[in-house]
Amino acid sequence: MRERTTIGIVGGGPSGLMLSHLLHREGIEHIVVEARPREEIENTHRAGILEQGSADMLTDGVSDRVLHDGARHDGIDIRINGESHHVDFQGLVGASTFLYPQTDVFIDLADKAVEDGRDVRFGLGPVDVDDLTGSPLISYVDPESGERIEIECELLVGTDGSRSTCRRSIPEGERRAFYREYPFAWFGIMAETPPSHDELIYARSEAGFALISQRTPKLQRLYFQCDPGTDPNAWTDEDIWATFRERVNFGGFELNEGPIVHKSVLGFRSFVSEPMRWGNLLLAGDAAHTVPPTGAKGLNLALQDVRILAESLAEWHSARSDSALTAYSERCLRRVWKAQNFSYWMTSMLHANPEASEFDQRRSVAELRTVVESEHGKAWLAESYTGWPNERTHS
Amino acid sequence: MRERTTIGIVGGGPSGLMLSHLLHREGIEHIVVEARPREEIENTHRAGILEQGSADMLTDGVSDRVLHDGARHDGIDIRINGESHHVDFQGLVGASTFLYPQTDVFIDLADKAVEDGRDVRFGLGPVDVDDLTGSPLISYVDPESGERIEIECELLVGTDGSRSTCRRSIPEGERRAFYREYPFAWFGIMAETPPSHDELIYARSEAGFALISQRTPKLQRLYFQCDPGTDPNAWTDEDIWATFRERVNFGGFELNEGPIVHKSVLGFRSFVSEPMRWGNLLLAGDAAHTVPPTGAKGLNLALQDVRILAESLAEWHSARSDSALTAYSERCLRRVWKAQNFSYWMTSMLHANPEASEFDQRRSVAELRTVVESEHGKAWLAESYTGWPNERTHS
Repeated sequence: MRERTTIGIVGGGPSGLMLSHLLHREGIEHIVVEARPREEIENTHRAGILEQGSADMLTDGVSDRVLHDGARHDGIDIRINGESHHVDFQGLVGASTFLYPQTDVFIDLADKAVEDGRDVRFGLGPVDVDDLTGSPLISYVDPESGERIEIECELLVGTDGSRSTCRRSIPEGERRAFYREYPFAWFGIMAETPPSHDELIYARSEAGFALISQRTPKLQRLYFQCDPGTDPNAWTDEDIWATFRERVNFGGFELNEGPIVHKSVLGFRSFVSEPMRWGNLLLAGDAAHTVPPTGAKGLNLALQDVRILAESLAEWHSARSDSALTAYSERCLRRVWKAQNFSYWMTSMLHANPEASEFDQRRSVAELRTVVESEHGKAWLAESYTGWPNERTHS
Repeated sequence: MRERTTIGIVGGGPSGLMLSHLLHREGIEHIVVEARPREEIENTHRAGILEQGSADMLTDGVSDRVLHDGARHDGIDIRINGESHHVDFQGLVGASTFLYPQTDVFIDLADKAVEDGRDVRFGLGPVDVDDLTGSPLISYVDPESGERIEIECELLVGTDGSRSTCRRSIPEGERRAFYREYPFAWFGIMAETPPSHDELIYARSEAGFALISQRTPKLQRLYFQCDPGTDPNAWTDEDIWATFRERVNFGGFELNEGPIVHKSVLGFRSFVSEPMRWGNLLLAGDAAHTVPPTGAKGLNLALQDVRILAESLAEWHSARSDSALTAYSERCLRRVWKAQNFSYWMTSMLHANPEASEFDQRRSVAELRTVVESEHGKAWLAESYTGWPNERTHS
């Protein structure tokens, strides 16, 4: 069976669903297809710190739940061998962030799509794309009827995550990959204890980095820097708590310890694929770029891509002009590279890097001190952390 | 002949002479010895941008000449492919810098030493040091009489520059060297033309870095990034001006061109030797650390070492306690590492690095943009450039 639509969106995670929400408001016809079942996505835990601008996108017509179920954070704490430095986001730059898991962002967006009666199809299994320079074609086998479904679109949007089928459909000679690997990863746990602190603690110590976060009043979310080859199952609870103690229990501060109910290792990678538009394909979010988790830019950057993309598509739709699509890639990439730099910077300044020269190891501690000992340094960090003002166009 | 003094200072450049000035005011007996003749130092051109705090040290009893003959700079201009971004030091952090060559700083300090009748001995040829853990001994052959002179001191200060004899007299196992090399250098010229601009221009372009500075109303001081192996004599004036044009002549801006009267290549290196105190030896300035020239921290850092050292020596002298000397190294090194980071940061953000990955090349342009497009970013740069407030002691 062949169907037709204006915009085909491959990927029904937060990026694809936010785009669907924005296109729906503009009255632009579209279909969202997603390989995984909705239940599977809802049951995959993904952490999340939302910039004010990201929270605003949710409260603007999707859901107010972030304001009630999310925790507003007006700052973070940076600790250097236990020496605590508070970065007061509100005092420095008049902004906040929200602790609100990506999983909940997804649920809000998926609920709203149902409420709107939008055409969002989950659990389709493998989805193929073709004819990206002509009239793009999405195809999949309907999991119930077994019938091959083809959707012909005027434009195709790839919001299908870091292993993006859409991105890989651009011929290799037509795209450039930029990346950086890191000699460490994060060991993440969920523990059944009350939170140890009411804001995030980014801790650098001789022994390495740790991040103290929260999940619910009864569940803590914590991370520590580990070797990328670490097997989480080889670590006992006592091994894990001993590691945290060494990194964060200084000067009377003691982490709440308790049963560890989830363990995983998160890899680190910086990646950008350019351009973000090729022919009639437009990429957004993780399909085009990924950042290491320090500084929590991934989801925020994806939502900003989508905001710009929705603007560009609305302009294209009303004027039928190509120029909005042409500008899309460059407009996004300016913010993408700034976020890449911020994520790299937070990562390199907070982690012990076993591969760095002794000069750079000492230098990077000094860099962190220069930031936290200066109001200007803290304001500079706070501005990037809570989100830059919307991107400027080229002068 | 054997003499005795309280503090023996090896090295009569700006650091050694500033220390002499400060010790003289405290009434602490000392002798300064310097291998080179005064005339030779006066005729070696060394550029200089003084932080407010450095200018204050001069006007506090040495000379007011910096205020009359120096040029106060209330900002710098950062250009990215010709796009100009002004960093207004006064507006952002209420501070300024002074264009005042190191050679003039030396002349002011040397004149004041003569006026005070202090014991400062130039042109001694090779100076040896010994017995650093006991009663340190300075020795040299008097260039006029041919007699061997020995000066026994209670404490020895090494302000003898980057090839410091004093530093090398610390046994290798007792000191640690930290360093970073760079895959570029600066090609510096002096040209007989009026200045092209009234403040410094730091220009990054696809073709590489350039710095537009000034010397006098009739003499320009300019630099461009080159390969470290460059032979300045192999470059014609036209080669040089063509290089500058490609890097800075954008959007109507044109460099004043004219006869080039001096050409040289300046190497880049970051270096720190720890500790800065060993036994009865104390190091200050280039003897303990050198920075790449971007950001102009070298002389300023040396003068801050000397300020802290003079305080420490005054405390030691009045209380005869070792604790002030013990604290000296750590107090200095906190600022030294911050300045190392700043110099590295300015260098890496402004130069095209042929050895960097494509990811890092793009990231570093984004880093520069993040700074210049943000008031907080510019204030953060301005604060480091014009000089941090005096160092804090450990909490």
